[in-house]
Amino acid sequence: MLIEFGGTRVLCAASVQDSVPRWRRDSGLGWVTAEYAMLPRATNTRNDREAVKGRIGGRTHEISRLIGRSIRGCLDLRKLGENTIQLDCDVLQADGGTRTAAVTGAYIALADAVSWMRGKGLVKADPFVTSVAAVSVGVVDGEPRLDLCYTEDAAAETDMNVVCTGDGRFIEVQGTAEGAPFDRAELDALLDLAAGGCAELTRLQKEALA
Amino acid sequence: MLIEFGGTRVLCAASVQDSVPRWRRDSGLGWVTAEYAMLPRATNTRNDREAVKGRIGGRTHEISRLIGRSIRGCLDLRKLGENTIQLDCDVLQADGGTRTAAVTGAYIALADAVSWMRGKGLVKADPFVTSVAAVSVGVVDGEPRLDLCYTEDAAAETDMNVVCTGDGRFIEVQGTAEGAPFDRAELDALLDLAAGGCAELTRLQKEALA
Amino acid sequence: MLIEFGGTRVLCAASVQDSVPRWRRDSGLGWVTAEYAMLPRATNTRNDREAVKGRIGGRTHEISRLIGRSIRGCLDLRKLGENTIQLDCDVLQADGGTRTAAVTGAYIALADAVSWMRGKGLVKADPFVTSVAAVSVGVVDGEPRLDLCYTEDAAAETDMNVVCTGDGRFIEVQGTAEGAPFDRAELDALLDLAAGGCAELTRLQKEALA
Amino acid sequence: MLIEFGGTRVLCAASVQDSVPRWRRDSGLGWVTAEYAMLPRATNTRNDREAVKGRIGGRTHEISRLIGRSIRGCLDLRKLGENTIQLDCDVLQADGGTRTAAVTGAYIALADAVSWMRGKGLVKADPFVTSVAAVSVGVVDGEPRLDLCYTEDAAAETDMNVVCTGDGRFIEVQGTAEGAPFDRAELDALLDLAAGGCAELTRLQKEALA
Amino acid sequence: MLIEFGGTRVLCAASVQDSVPRWRRDSGLGWVTAEYAMLPRATNTRNDREAVKGRIGGRTHEISRLIGRSIRGCLDLRKLGENTIQLDCDVLQADGGTRTAAVTGAYIALADAVSWMRGKGLVKADPFVTSVAAVSVGVVDGEPRLDLCYTEDAAAETDMNVVCTGDGRFIEVQGTAEGAPFDRAELDALLDLAAGGCAELTRLQKEALA
Amino acid sequence: MLIEFGGTRVLCAASVQDSVPRWRRDSGLGWVTAEYAMLPRATNTRNDREAVKGRIGGRTHEISRLIGRSIRGCLDLRKLGENTIQLDCDVLQADGGTRTAAVTGAYIALADAVSWMRGKGLVKADPFVTSVAAVSVGVVDGEPRLDLCYTEDAAAETDMNVVCTGDGRFIEVQGTAEGAPFDRAELDALLDLAAGGCAELTRLQKEALA
Repeated sequence: MLIEFGGTRVLCAASVQDSVPRWRRDSGLGWVTAEYAMLPRATNTRNDREAVKGRIGGRTHEISRLIGRSIRGCLDLRKLGENTIQLDCDVLQADGGTRTAAVTGAYIALADAVSWMRGKGLVKADPFVTSVAAVSVGVVDGEPRLDLCYTEDAAAETDMNVVCTGDGRFIEVQGTAEGAPFDRAELDALLDLAAGGCAELTRLQKEALA
Repeated sequence: MLIEFGGTRVLCAASVQDSVPRWRRDSGLGWVTAEYAMLPRATNTRNDREAVKGRIGGRTHEISRLIGRSIRGCLDLRKLGENTIQLDCDVLQADGGTRTAAVTGAYIALADAVSWMRGKGLVKADPFVTSVAAVSVGVVDGEPRLDLCYTEDAAAETDMNVVCTGDGRFIEVQGTAEGAPFDRAELDALLDLAAGGCAELTRLQKEALA
Repeated sequence: MLIEFGGTRVLCAASVQDSVPRWRRDSGLGWVTAEYAMLPRATNTRNDREAVKGRIGGRTHEISRLIGRSIRGCLDLRKLGENTIQLDCDVLQADGGTRTAAVTGAYIALADAVSWMRGKGLVKADPFVTSVAAVSVGVVDGEPRLDLCYTEDAAAETDMNVVCTGDGRFIEVQGTAEGAPFDRAELDALLDLAAGGCAELTRLQKEALA
Repeated sequence: MLIEFGGTRVLCAASVQDSVPRWRRDSGLGWVTAEYAMLPRATNTRNDREAVKGRIGGRTHEISRLIGRSIRGCLDLRKLGENTIQLDCDVLQADGGTRTAAVTGAYIALADAVSWMRGKGLVKADPFVTSVAAVSVGVVDGEPRLDLCYTEDAAAETDMNVVCTGDGRFIEVQGTAEGAPFDRAELDALLDLAAGGCAELTRLQKEALA
Repeated sequence: MLIEFGGTRVLCAASVQDSVPRWRRDSGLGWVTAEYAMLPRATNTRNDREAVKGRIGGRTHEISRLIGRSIRGCLDLRKLGENTIQLDCDVLQADGGTRTAAVTGAYIALADAVSWMRGKGLVKADPFVTSVAAVSVGVVDGEPRLDLCYTEDAAAETDMNVVCTGDGRFIEVQGTAEGAPFDRAELDALLDLAAGGCAELTRLQKEALA
Repeated sequence: MLIEFGGTRVLCAASVQDSVPRWRRDSGLGWVTAEYAMLPRATNTRNDREAVKGRIGGRTHEISRLIGRSIRGCLDLRKLGENTIQLDCDVLQADGGTRTAAVTGAYIALADAVSWMRGKGLVKADPFVTSVAAVSVGVVDGEPRLDLCYTEDAAAETDMNVVCTGDGRFIEVQGTAEGAPFDRAELDALLDLAAGGCAELTRLQKEALA
């Protein structure tokens, strides 16, 4: 499925395999993992392909791991059985917030895949504990803002990515001072804004899956 | 730009740089190069990412080189000046003929980039000698066919990729016997069919660029 | 310098170079970067060397980037001049909290290196805006705890790494739900605990540098 | 065996293994694969070793794949049984046409290996459907020529590699316009020339194997 | 265990695995292997990490192999059973003679590991045939010297690493002319000096293990 | 040039470049370096290509370094001027002693290259201090032997490679106990045998170059 947030477009796909990685065998647990990548011309200035460089950069690794952790946070992996779901999030066009768009879209691809697995009898009971959605928030010119586009993001003093469950709790909170350090009041304001943004996305996800 | 041939969808982008690789400096000639890649879920069964494997496979290398050669074949590189155009052809969905779709789409991305360069004054004179388009043809059940989809391609006895100029000459002819060897008569029939297909694509390219 | 937190021992070293990476030249700004690594037997069960595997894993990348960002957050890079400081954080023994120990120790190695640079006249004015220290906190058995050792960390429901400045503001907040999602009250309790822990570390850093 | 075409010398060796790659197991089919490489001083100017660079270049990949496809084209892989033949073609000295020399020599190494396998009882029935030989042809100064040496090859307007079976049919036709595009008449002339060259090589192969 | 020779400090650790590499299975023999590495700031001038470069250098490979061979030379691998001992020698600080310090320290780590294995019943009989220790010797200003520090080593005309058993025989002798070639008399003098140095180390090893 | 020792055949080539590596610039000194490699079918059982594996093994590194050191030992690098000679030693067929054959053959390729450089005026004065040759010796069934073939080498209790100058001094001595440790008397006997073998090779080198 293709998720669009302003100028950001991410293609999210789920692939199902009826086995788990070696280190997880005979545990009765399923596994969900994610890979994030950006096309070389997703950005305005071309980036070299990681396949050509022969190694995956730190940023890509970091985001792939964030998506995997976030998505696993909404599932009961015992109910998935010994199956693996591989999520692929490929950024076709980037204008800020690609990692949070990827998490939000990956959840929908995952929900579709799980429906298909239940239809096939691969999964017996609903493995979802909750849903998951993510937003980026930041302080720009001293003011908290939701869903930063690229130019806002580059100018932000503080940048925060927040992953919430459908019932308003947190799975991941990552805040970074890009310019000046931030104090507790700013942090609280950003968390409020993010929680509201995630609630709105949760509503849109429900619509999309209905 | 996004090119679609049946179930095949390839995103083609051109990036311009006002310099040439080191080995070409002070030659007065421009350079055009291409990179081809497939998203992991472009096909029905997921393929591992080459970036994750840490190396580019032979098939990817082979196709990237074919696109580069084909595209360079329609340009007078002296008129490009010491500029480089990097073409990226990323297959979002694959249903046969991805390499020929990539060549045909890359030409349009290239034509757009050259227009932009002429607008900016980076290129003074029209560097195009001709246009370029490509088709795949094959022998299926003993009969020559144009534009094989994946299931036909897998069943083809002979598989041929042909790159033609806008005036009907050849830039690249690659025929491979997948099952039984082919004789001269079959080769001739495939070349006729391919030339006709390329002529039709040339007409569509003109429309797209108009 | 060797920093010890319970059973965790990290060797932190700073290396100075009187130039900056190519992309930063002629900016008048300095650069600080960090590399984190773990000896194969730092943990109880041996881990394969990343040099032998030929690639750096996602976790290592992620932590190296965290240390670099955290450390840059306490400096005015203009006052560093066009010099690079490379921080190396090598974990000799790991018992939880290696990344936060690395940040805290890297600050001391950095402060030593900057003193040396000022002695040599490489840096004219004090580039430190503040100091930086980090702690890990987590919820274990429903209770917030400071400085988790490995067995606590493995059992934690929520795991949070917090990087603070010497004056009590935040540079980085990374909270992850390992088991169940966490709510705002839990997040607040963890942030309070972390801020207190960082204040204590700031005091110890001052003693060590005096 | 060492094959020499003018100044080109290629060492071709076949290695037999009594198993097939994992993806081919329990198919009842054999497998033949090839690796092509050039010594660093095979050419007049030294080329860096691919092992030292840590990756195989596109040209090497492309040629290895061509040799493998060509050679598989002359065999009934069912009659080979679940055995693998690995062909190694190492260019000791290069003066044009190394890939076609490699195909022609690899056929002889293959035929020897198959004889040995039949002697050992590893292969029951003759798996050869036909023989295979290859030539390079090109247009130099407007004239079609057979077996281009390096200086002719560099000057060629069109370069074509043709792989034929012993009974004159085609396994692979690869024609590339290096300078100007070529028309159907030129293509026909090159194919005629190539077919004649392959017929002569087929005769020499028979002598060598007798 | 941490071994110190003057300014050289090497951390040596042994890890036990109750299996052997695939090529050794069902041989009844154990296996001992070693990996050597240097922290980036072990030397006065920082060295880039091999993990970051993505490949292990020749010097590292050479020393790891030397340690492995030396250590295997003092064991009866049949008595070890099908177990593997992996030795890790990490240089924290380097001031000459790191490879010989690593061999000498690795022996002690090995002896500890074997004691532990015997306690666990993994090894029934004492597998040690002898002990092993190593020194570096060299000719500096025309005079043979034992245990060269870094500045002596850099100035040495001849550099020799000698690995001896506890009963005074040789396992490895590696002499290299750095400046002028050396004659038989010089070689003899260096061997005498080395044998004496190894005897002293053997005594110290016994004390350490008592 | 192709050097043959019994069943061992090594192709040695020297390539000249009129510059030195970056770290050597403006030193007034030349540089000589060597790369050793084995064709996959040089041995009776095929070895995988290091280029395909994407990394060079420890043995290859070790031997390349040995050849480089040995060859540099016979030259006055100041007289070579700021030129680099790259030696390539490729083993076509291996039957023991490939590294010593490579050193001995590399010297001849080097001498030819230096003659050519002197003819071109790239080198003014004779840079050779002496010549260099190498042999392998070993103890088989309790007896010292010269020039071990593969089956002897595999059975040897002690294996020693010795590189000598034309005037009988040593450049490199590498002795390894494969089975039992060796004592001083055995070492002395091997050194005598090696010195005699090198003297004979020096004579043959002179003939070859005359």
